[in-house]
Order: sequence, then structure tokens, then C-alpha cells
Amino acid sequence: MKARRPLAFSLHEIVARLGGELIGPGTVAIRQVAPLDTAGPDELSFLTGGKYRRLLESTRAAAVILGRDHRDSTERPRIVCDNPYAYLARVSALLNPAEPVAAGIHPSAAVHATATVASTASVGPCAAVDAGATIGARCVIDAGCVIGRNSIIGDDSRLHANVVIYPDCRVGARGILHSGVVIGGDGFGIAEEDGRWLKVPQIGRAIIGDDVEIGANTTVDRGALGDTVIEEGVKLDNLIQIAHNVVIGAHTAIAACAGIAGSARIGRGCRIGGAAMIHGHIEICDGTVVGAGTMVRKSITEPGIYDGFFPCLPHREWMKNLAHFNRLHELAETVRELEARMAAMEGKPK
Amino acid sequence: MKARRPLAFSLHEIVARLGGELIGPGTVAIRQVAPLDTAGPDELSFLTGGKYRRLLESTRAAAVILGRDHRDSTERPRIVCDNPYAYLARVSALLNPAEPVAAGIHPSAAVHATATVASTASVGPCAAVDAGATIGARCVIDAGCVIGRNSIIGDDSRLHANVVIYPDCRVGARGILHSGVVIGGDGFGIAEEDGRWLKVPQIGRAIIGDDVEIGANTTVDRGALGDTVIEEGVKLDNLIQIAHNVVIGAHTAIAACAGIAGSARIGRGCRIGGAAMIHGHIEICDGTVVGAGTMVRKSITEPGIYDGFFPCLPHREWMKNLAHFNRLHELAETVRELEARMAAMEGKPK
Amino acid sequence: MKARRPLAFSLHEIVARLGGELIGPGTVAIRQVAPLDTAGPDELSFLTGGKYRRLLESTRAAAVILGRDHRDSTERPRIVCDNPYAYLARVSALLNPAEPVAAGIHPSAAVHATATVASTASVGPCAAVDAGATIGARCVIDAGCVIGRNSIIGDDSRLHANVVIYPDCRVGARGILHSGVVIGGDGFGIAEEDGRWLKVPQIGRAIIGDDVEIGANTTVDRGALGDTVIEEGVKLDNLIQIAHNVVIGAHTAIAACAGIAGSARIGRGCRIGGAAMIHGHIEICDGTVVGAGTMVRKSITEPGIYDGFFPCLPHREWMKNLAHFNRLHELAETVRELEARMAAMEGKPK
Repeated sequence: MKARRPLAFSLHEIVARLGGELIGPGTVAIRQVAPLDTAGPDELSFLTGGKYRRLLESTRAAAVILGRDHRDSTERPRIVCDNPYAYLARVSALLNPAEPVAAGIHPSAAVHATATVASTASVGPCAAVDAGATIGARCVIDAGCVIGRNSIIGDDSRLHANVVIYPDCRVGARGILHSGVVIGGDGFGIAEEDGRWLKVPQIGRAIIGDDVEIGANTTVDRGALGDTVIEEGVKLDNLIQIAHNVVIGAHTAIAACAGIAGSARIGRGCRIGGAAMIHGHIEICDGTVVGAGTMVRKSITEPGIYDGFFPCLPHREWMKNLAHFNRLHELAETVRELEARMAAMEGKPK
Repeated sequence: MKARRPLAFSLHEIVARLGGELIGPGTVAIRQVAPLDTAGPDELSFLTGGKYRRLLESTRAAAVILGRDHRDSTERPRIVCDNPYAYLARVSALLNPAEPVAAGIHPSAAVHATATVASTASVGPCAAVDAGATIGARCVIDAGCVIGRNSIIGDDSRLHANVVIYPDCRVGARGILHSGVVIGGDGFGIAEEDGRWLKVPQIGRAIIGDDVEIGANTTVDRGALGDTVIEEGVKLDNLIQIAHNVVIGAHTAIAACAGIAGSARIGRGCRIGGAAMIHGHIEICDGTVVGAGTMVRKSITEPGIYDGFFPCLPHREWMKNLAHFNRLHELAETVRELEARMAAMEGKPK
Repeated sequence: MKARRPLAFSLHEIVARLGGELIGPGTVAIRQVAPLDTAGPDELSFLTGGKYRRLLESTRAAAVILGRDHRDSTERPRIVCDNPYAYLARVSALLNPAEPVAAGIHPSAAVHATATVASTASVGPCAAVDAGATIGARCVIDAGCVIGRNSIIGDDSRLHANVVIYPDCRVGARGILHSGVVIGGDGFGIAEEDGRWLKVPQIGRAIIGDDVEIGANTTVDRGALGDTVIEEGVKLDNLIQIAHNVVIGAHTAIAACAGIAGSARIGRGCRIGGAAMIHGHIEICDGTVVGAGTMVRKSITEPGIYDGFFPCLPHREWMKNLAHFNRLHELAETVRELEARMAAMEGKPK
């Protein structure tokens, strides 16, 4: 069941707009996209790898999006293209345009007299826009959002309900910030003095580039002295922590529950898995892939795939292995000693 | 010190309502429940295992809830029952009823003209209920909550302050959603194309069954194509991430800081420990227990207890073991070579 | 680039207020603090360890804060003191005072008739203060905050936008709570009965001491029976979970993404690394340091540094080691058997 009533496009219209090679009749009306196993006769499905290929036979889909290597895997009506998943994204955007939001400021919103809100922007119920803040053209600031003093939201950005932007921060154009996101909170800067903690004022900003999407309840702290920077095209999932003075390079994607500690620099085009933890003051080079649940403690200077997770085992088996882990040093010593004794018996020096 | 002034019930009244066997005088007035070590003479305490049995002697509690196996562990007034912890839950609910909330819509709330709010429901200050949304009978929607277009909140549910429900989602009856919960935010669906990320529209919904409780700042994403489903009776703790198209089976409980990646299916009656991470596109069978901090990367098809945490060691000891872990492959090779040399010396083929 | 236009102080004025030994001319005007590599001629920089010492030569900073051991590491104007990082914190606070916030209740805020708000406090747009709550002198309650029934916020505390305080809780004086913080949500108390979960009412409170700072989207649950307690001077980073009945000792600092399970007691002056997980019902003694990503499953009774993280390796290397980890028990058995065979060959009993 789909959340939104879709428009309809013929396969001809779709190919005319998005490219790709249409094989089969082009007049059938497509109302939605769907997986192979649940698609109905007015839905367009897709195959993004070989894994679900067997479903091509049984699907009820009107047509299927396929990569060139699967061109002949079915007789069904199909669109053949270079990148089926990207094609799916485009078709789905065509069929499921964002619900239009009327421009204007809800009467319950509190917009400061010195704030600038574009006439084409929408500010929802009980949202607050503080002094000197700027809301760009066609922005949607949903209910309960709070935009701090002098912060700037770029054109065509959408802040879902209850997002908070602290003062003096900047969000680029076409941003999507999901509910509960906090941009520009103070970084964790504390100096010890006589067993107590002094707060180090966090005087930098949080700067978010264009085309960035940030998932629900993710936090991006402002910088301690310089700025925290999320470059253009970065995609962050939910419940991620980005600490002060971190730099995330353009077009990097980070999955949920990850944490990036202070002053870490993540390169461009990286992929960081869920629940991965990146230590502070290290650099990760462009194009690095970090596996889920991996802790990175040292800089990575060679692009590649890095892992450090522990998969689970049945409890008893795990405990057996774990016991040996805790005696691993001893085990290594035993092996070294055995080597020596063996060499002695063999009459040759080790 | 307790947060709320309790009512008083005699032990007779408690047993009459909740069952169990009363041993001792039944007239004493019980005003609150409390642990054995802090309970006072108008409080009812409990023993849920053997661990705190020694406290039975010194407690000042008016009476104690005990399991059948501890029936004779004390001379004190006591209620003997099958499940002391469940009994405690019921007595506490009796003594600490939820503070009544007056029905009605606060004048500062923004309820759309096409939304339906039951006359017995309460909508708090600065809450927003969007077009076509439905708020069921006796619901409490606290201050700052935002209910999206066409979403439905079932009867007797309570949304604590600042909860966000995106459009087209559904929360069942008797739900409890704590502050900062976000239901139905977009899943992390991105398609790579020429080193950039295209957003894959998330057109499914998030569907929450009856009797579900969700802890503070937990996020449940909407589905990419189909729906994300939390079945009835599921209990989620704080700061949990539930990704798109996940299905959580009925009566499963998940502790704080856990993450469930996209399209994972968790069975019914499972228990997932805190900070556990479940990979995407896998299935975990009914009745599985996953230990805290465990990463599950493959489907689990046999119910049981699964673990994969690493407990901590003093820094120096840990570093010593860790060094060997990083040479574990080498160590295994050495052992294999020793086996061969030993066999050669013994004159038998390995 | 700095977020705020700073005041200016001469080095003379700074040393007069904050102490330290000034070496060099004292008349230069200082407008901001900055790292050695980016500081300009009206900025004061600092050296907190030996690592960046080489930058002392090339910096354009007007002057530098140094520890006594680096007194003669440069010819530049300098302030020599015992604790350069703490000194930096104080200078920065001097140069970057908090933006003043006008006292008063915003007309869109909903303050209950029986709540008490100090005349010097500020309550922002669309904030809600419920019945019987108390807001202390000079507090700033930002937009969208919700203060529950009978809760108390101590003098000079600041709650950034969209913080939620549940009923009957207490925040001490000079607290700083960042956006999305939830204090006093129900703990995860559930009792199993016939395969279903009964809610155990959470009747304790959450009590936060003086001078506590809590990062964005961190959650502190109320107690199940007794209270959850965060003692004075504790500093919590973002996205941390503090479960019911936890006690965090004074002046302990906890980094982002950590989780503290129910009834754990953390001592005073501890440092808990990011993403560390502390199991329930254990105690960690005063002055303990727990490394990032470490899971603590047993009480720690000796202060010291404890670790349990796994650093990452290139994927292929990791997989090779991991395979052996899963056969570690077998490997240990092989070593034991080799020892026995070797001893037999040597003619001595093992």
C-alpha cells in the first residue's frame, strides 16, 4: 500500500523524459513503482542486481527496469538502462512529486521583525525564526522548527517539523533536514581545572553545503574555534553525531548511528557504515569505505574497504572463543616456546 | 522520594483486585511500592529473584510480594504469586494512576480544519495537527507534537511533548510515544550516479500496532516502497534507529541505542540488547535473544542467545591481547607448521 | 571565520583579570582566540601540548598562551600559566560573552497560571510551562521547550530550543541543556507475563545537579522507583542514553553516543569515551577512564584506564584474522595438544 496517490505516465512518456531503451509496447499507464514480488499491473518494477532475477518470471508488474546485462533476462516490457537503481529514483520522483506546500507564514509562527522570509517560502505552525535570520525562496520550514539568530537557510530547502538551527549557522540550497535534527549546538569543549570542567566557548559555526540531506535526530555541532563543515551532496542518516570542527567531504554518505569525533576530516565520496565510530583528529582519505560497526582510530591514507566489526555467535560458542581472546597473549607465548623446543629437538638453532 | 502522591489501598483490597495469596494481616494501608532497602512502613516491596533475599530481614516494608519459591523466606506480611515483577507492575499502576489530562484543544495549538480530533482527546499547547489527520478517543497529544497530513493516532494513545508523526502514518491504540520520537521520516534511500547521490523517494509508510511504547528520541523511518511495520505489543527503548521497511514482530523488546538496518525482519517475542546492531535484509527468528553490543550480520534461524560483545580489560592487558589479535593469522600458521614438524619427528604422516 | 563579533581587551587587561605571567608588550588589542595556524594579528593563540610546537614559529598571532614548560619556546609576546587550555577557556569566555536575552515571556508561549517564572527569566516563542513548574532567575527557556508539571529549573540555566523536561524533575543552577534533550522520560521498565509486556510505572524522578551541561538529543530517563541522579558539574555530550536509576558522580564527563544502562553507578571524576556502553546494575569507581567504544559488563573497582575497542583493518586482513578468532578455541586446543606431544618426545611428563 502506498502513501500517496500517484500520477500516471505511459512507458513512452517515461522514456521520453528519462532516457533508456524501451523494449515492448509503450502505451501502458504506470501509476507507481514497486518491488518485483508485490508490483501490480499498473506498476513499474526493477532489478538492481542478479539476486532477485528469479522473480522476473512471476512478477505481475507492467514493465521492469533492467541493466544492460539483464537485457534479455525476460520477455516482458522493459526499460534497459545503465543504472537501474538511479532510474528507479527518477521514475519514482516523477510519479511521486512532493506534496505542494502553500507559501506564507502561519499565524502561530513567531518570525522576528528583522528576519527575512522569502515570499515564496512557507513557515509552519509554531515555528520560530529569530532576529536577522534568512529563509530562502520556496523553503518549507515545518511546524515547530526554530531558526536561530542570523542563520541562513538556502533556497528550496525543507526543514521537517521540530528541526533546530542554532544562531549563525548556514544550510545550503535544496537541503532536506528531517525532524529532530539539531545543527550548531555547542561542541563538547571542556577544559579540566582542579578536578572540574570549564566550558570552552564554541565560537565557530556549522556550515552545511547544498544538496545535503540529514536524517531524523542527527546532531551537527558548531565548531570550537573554526567551523564544522558538511560539504555539498553529503547524505547523513538518522541519529548520527557530527562533533565540532569535523569536515565531511562532498558526496560522502554516512549510515545511521555513526559517530564522528571532533576535528576528524572525512574525505569526498566516502561511505561510512552504520554505527561506525571515527576518532577525533584523524583523516580519512577520499573514496574510503568503512564497514558497519567499525571503529577507526588512526588516519586512513589508502582508499579501500576497512572493517572492524565482530559478528555474533551463539552464546556458548562466543564465550568459548572470548575466553581464549583474553588469554591470547599467553597462547602466543606458548607457541613461541614450542617453536624453540621443537627447533632444539631438531638440532637446529631457531 | 517518589514523584507523585499515591493513593492508599489495604493489602486486602490489593489481593481482591490483583489476585495472589495474602499471608498475614490485610488491613495495613499501602501508599506506594519501593525496593526492599528503602521501603517505609506504608510501602509494599518485592523480591524478584534470590539476589536480594538477605534484605528481607532488614526491610521496613509493610509487606512484600514474593514468588511461590520464596513463600517461606520471611515471616513478614506477604503476597505470594506466580510472577512478582508483573504483580509489582500491576500494584504500581493501581497506586500511581496517570495524572488525568483535561480533554480539549489548547488555544495555541494549530489543528487544521480538515483534521478530526475526538472530543475526549487532549491537544496541548503549540501542537500542530495537519490536514486530514485523525486523533482518537481519549488521546493525549502533548505540547509541541506535530501530526502530519492524514496520519491516524489510535484511541487512548499518549504522545509526550515534541513527538513528530510524518504524513500518512498510523499509530495504534494505547500507544505511548516519548518525547523526541520521530515516526515516518524518510528512509536512507540513495542511488549513486556519477559519484553523486540521487534521492529515492520514500513512498511507503510507518505503521505502528496497538500497545506499542517507544522511548525518547527513537526514530522509525517510513518505508521506501512498502511499509515499515512495528507490530502490536512491541517495546522500544530510547535512541533506537528503525530503518525503512523493517518489520518488528509482536511483543519484541529492544533496548536503548540499538539500530535495525533496512528491510531487516525481527521475529515475535525477541529481545534485542542495548546498542546491538542488526544488519539490513536479514531475518531473525521468533524468540531470539541478542546480547547487548552485538552486531548481527547474518540471518538467525534457530532461536537462542547470541552474543558478540567485547568486554573491557585494563588498558595494558587489552593492548597486549589486541596486538596478538592483529597477528592471529600468523599465529595460526605457526601452529599448523609446528604440527607438521612434530608429526615428521614422530615419524608419522600428519 | 568566527560566529560573533568579539570585544577587544589588551594583554594587560587579560592578565589583570585572569592571572598568568605576561612576557612582552601588553598593549596590543586582542579581539579573538584562534589556533596557531589561522590566528591573525589581533588574535590570541595557545599551545596545549608539544604537538603543535613547530607552529609557534610561523603563527601570525598577536600573542600565545603557553604552559610553564614552553616558557622559552618562542620569542613572541606570551602569557605563561599552569593550564593553557583552561586559560584559553577563560579568555574566550571574556571575549565571547553570551548574547544577552531579554527577560520576559513571549506572547506565543503557554505558561500555566500556577507556574512560577522569575521576572528576570526569558521564555521563548511557543514554549510551554505547565502547572506548578518553576523557572529560576535569569533562566533562558528557548523556543519550543516544554517544562512539565511541578518541574523546577534552577537559576541561570539555559534550555536551548525544543528541550523537554517531564513532570516532577529538577535541573540545577547554571545548567546548559542543548536542543532535543529529554529529561525524565519513562525508563524501560517492562515485566513479562504470558509472552507480553506489562509496563512498570516509572514513579521516580530525574534530578540534575548544578553546573551540568547536556548535549543535543541526549536522553535522561526518570527513575523506576527511586530517582535518576546526575550530580553537579557533570558534562554529557550529544546522543547519550542515561537509563533509569543511573547515578553519575560529580564532575564526570561522558562523550557522545555512549549508553549507560539501568541502575549503573558511575563514580566521580570519571571519563567515559564516545560510544562506550556501560551495563546495568554495575558500579564504576571514582576516577575511572573508559576508552571509546568499550563495553563495560562488570563493576570496575580499581581506578585506571579500561579499553575494549577493536580498531579497524583493511577488509581482507580483518576477515583473515576474524576467521581465526572464530576458531580460537580450536587453536588453543591444538597448542595444548602440541605441548603434550612435545613433552612426551622430550621424555618428561608435561
